[in-house]
Amino acid sequence: MFDNKDTTNINQLGEFGLIDLITKSVVLKEASSLKGIGDDAAVLDFKNEKTLISTDLLLEGIHFDLRYVPLKHLGYKAVQVNLSDIYAMNALASQITFSIGVSSKFPIEAVEELYVGALLACDKFGVDLIGGDTSASAQGLVISVTSIGHAKAADIVYRNGASEGDLICVSGDLGGAYVGLQLLEREKMIFLENPEIQPDLEGKDYIIERQLKPEARKDIVDLLRDLKIKPTSMIDVSDGLASELLHICNQSERGCKLYEEKIPIDPMTYDTAREFNLDPTVCALSGGEDYELLFSIKQADYEKIKNVPEITVIGHITEKNSGKELISKSGQVHPLTAQGWNAFRG
Amino acid sequence: MFDNKDTTNINQLGEFGLIDLITKSVVLKEASSLKGIGDDAAVLDFKNEKTLISTDLLLEGIHFDLRYVPLKHLGYKAVQVNLSDIYAMNALASQITFSIGVSSKFPIEAVEELYVGALLACDKFGVDLIGGDTSASAQGLVISVTSIGHAKAADIVYRNGASEGDLICVSGDLGGAYVGLQLLEREKMIFLENPEIQPDLEGKDYIIERQLKPEARKDIVDLLRDLKIKPTSMIDVSDGLASELLHICNQSERGCKLYEEKIPIDPMTYDTAREFNLDPTVCALSGGEDYELLFSIKQADYEKIKNVPEITVIGHITEKNSGKELISKSGQVHPLTAQGWNAFRG
Repeated sequence: MFDNKDTTNINQLGEFGLIDLITKSVVLKEASSLKGIGDDAAVLDFKNEKTLISTDLLLEGIHFDLRYVPLKHLGYKAVQVNLSDIYAMNALASQITFSIGVSSKFPIEAVEELYVGALLACDKFGVDLIGGDTSASAQGLVISVTSIGHAKAADIVYRNGASEGDLICVSGDLGGAYVGLQLLEREKMIFLENPEIQPDLEGKDYIIERQLKPEARKDIVDLLRDLKIKPTSMIDVSDGLASELLHICNQSERGCKLYEEKIPIDPMTYDTAREFNLDPTVCALSGGEDYELLFSIKQADYEKIKNVPEITVIGHITEKNSGKELISKSGQVHPLTAQGWNAFRG
Repeated sequence: MFDNKDTTNINQLGEFGLIDLITKSVVLKEASSLKGIGDDAAVLDFKNEKTLISTDLLLEGIHFDLRYVPLKHLGYKAVQVNLSDIYAMNALASQITFSIGVSSKFPIEAVEELYVGALLACDKFGVDLIGGDTSASAQGLVISVTSIGHAKAADIVYRNGASEGDLICVSGDLGGAYVGLQLLEREKMIFLENPEIQPDLEGKDYIIERQLKPEARKDIVDLLRDLKIKPTSMIDVSDGLASELLHICNQSERGCKLYEEKIPIDPMTYDTAREFNLDPTVCALSGGEDYELLFSIKQADYEKIKNVPEITVIGHITEKNSGKELISKSGQVHPLTAQGWNAFRG
């Protein structure tokens, strides 16, 4: 998209010029988007469905490092991460607002890349960009995304509905995003020490993509609906499996048994974790950023999911007083903690 | 609220501890708030009304200077500024999300002050805090607010509905926030040069408050409803009267005549602008941050508002080809520009 032309500074264009540039390619497609960008507020129509709202802040130096995150991927990921929260309610995402704070020295073309990524995510998930804010930033790049979705009241799944005996399920596989991050960080350090050395990421596409380009699991929400399964509780895995399962247990006032051997870990995640002397299970429990869906279902629904490759049963819900337990591959029982599994590692 | 105890760093508390601290005082009061903080997304119920969404990003060093902005005021203002966008659609604001990025060295008590201010604004305007995000920031303080509101489809007022002959009205008075900012900036410079000198802001409360503690004009939306007036177009004055009126004209595909002598300017704003050798009219046209409502009404509604002290008629809408004009006090005609009025100042 750069056409070999020189880059343009934002301050040559001004805020309104920047907004015009960004919004000229935005088309509303969702029936529920009555009014998008261009007024004081967007106007949405969810008729007899409930409105869902989730918001995230992504800050340079905390959530991303522009030295190895391409801006297009960053825009894409920022949207995915936020949509994931709507899907984790068993709802349909339909709109986002996308706000950025950016240095006035940032080239316009870089801002365009960011929006190209964000709009790509919108397109893929059938979501409209309906607003946002653009601002100069005196410091690093700031991204704020708010997702809006809708669902029938009876379809919404909260974190607090898990009951004793329910099966704990997770989509996809875990730990990959964290191991991918270790790989990117290592290559960054090597590059900083010697810029002549090209990054060695060959054959690691899967875990690099898990980190740079996660995909919100709308497909799982669609699948559960097709299978006529309403989970009893659900959450997305942003902070690591352990932390998320503890949220479900605490809010549902229940315990759990989680089986280490059942936790789905991709072979590349496993092998690369080992290269870094990391325990693959700890990466899955505490790594985070996988954006898979963790949910509980009634035992009666087991038959419907047992042959679905994208869903793995990893344990079950117990009564509150049984505690929140991790059963290791060797059969030992450990309390599940949000820091992962430190007592177990040594 | 500090009880003379030592301050606590955020990193002693952690993100979840911080969220618990912030949210323990949050109570949902709005009937439309089905689920607030504590799940992947909030759930709202607007029944047969439309959903409105607006979002703002506020960045340290761009939108505020912590050297003279108290954090409680900042939290209050951040919410007001955003609610103002919902009122500018002639809608009722009912929820906000409030996200912050803050240095881990920031004391918890400072974060609490920020939320005390935000919650004060929520309380005053009958709005629920339903979510947000808290993050470490590697740079300055970052605040992101999303406001959610609702309205019957027929009540929503856009920027594009002004017709020839409509009267242009504005609430309150203009320019005060900008002049208040000049005053605060001057005292900051004096203080930086000589910290012994106390700020001299005596008797300037009104314009200081206009800058530090603006009030969104929900009262005007309520008043218009009571008077059975539906504006033909409306916008809030965040960037200055000129810029906002041009938005209405451009989106409505109309011209305007704006009369300088009609623009409401408070005497303190006027006198202080003069002290700074600023033209008070330019402060009103280009200063911004007044968060008053600018709107057009049909001529037939004039009788209903002519004795309302809080509303001033400042001009009228013309056909598109008549241009967008400012009529000076001496009767000269100038094109209205978003930079204010530069051609006229010399």
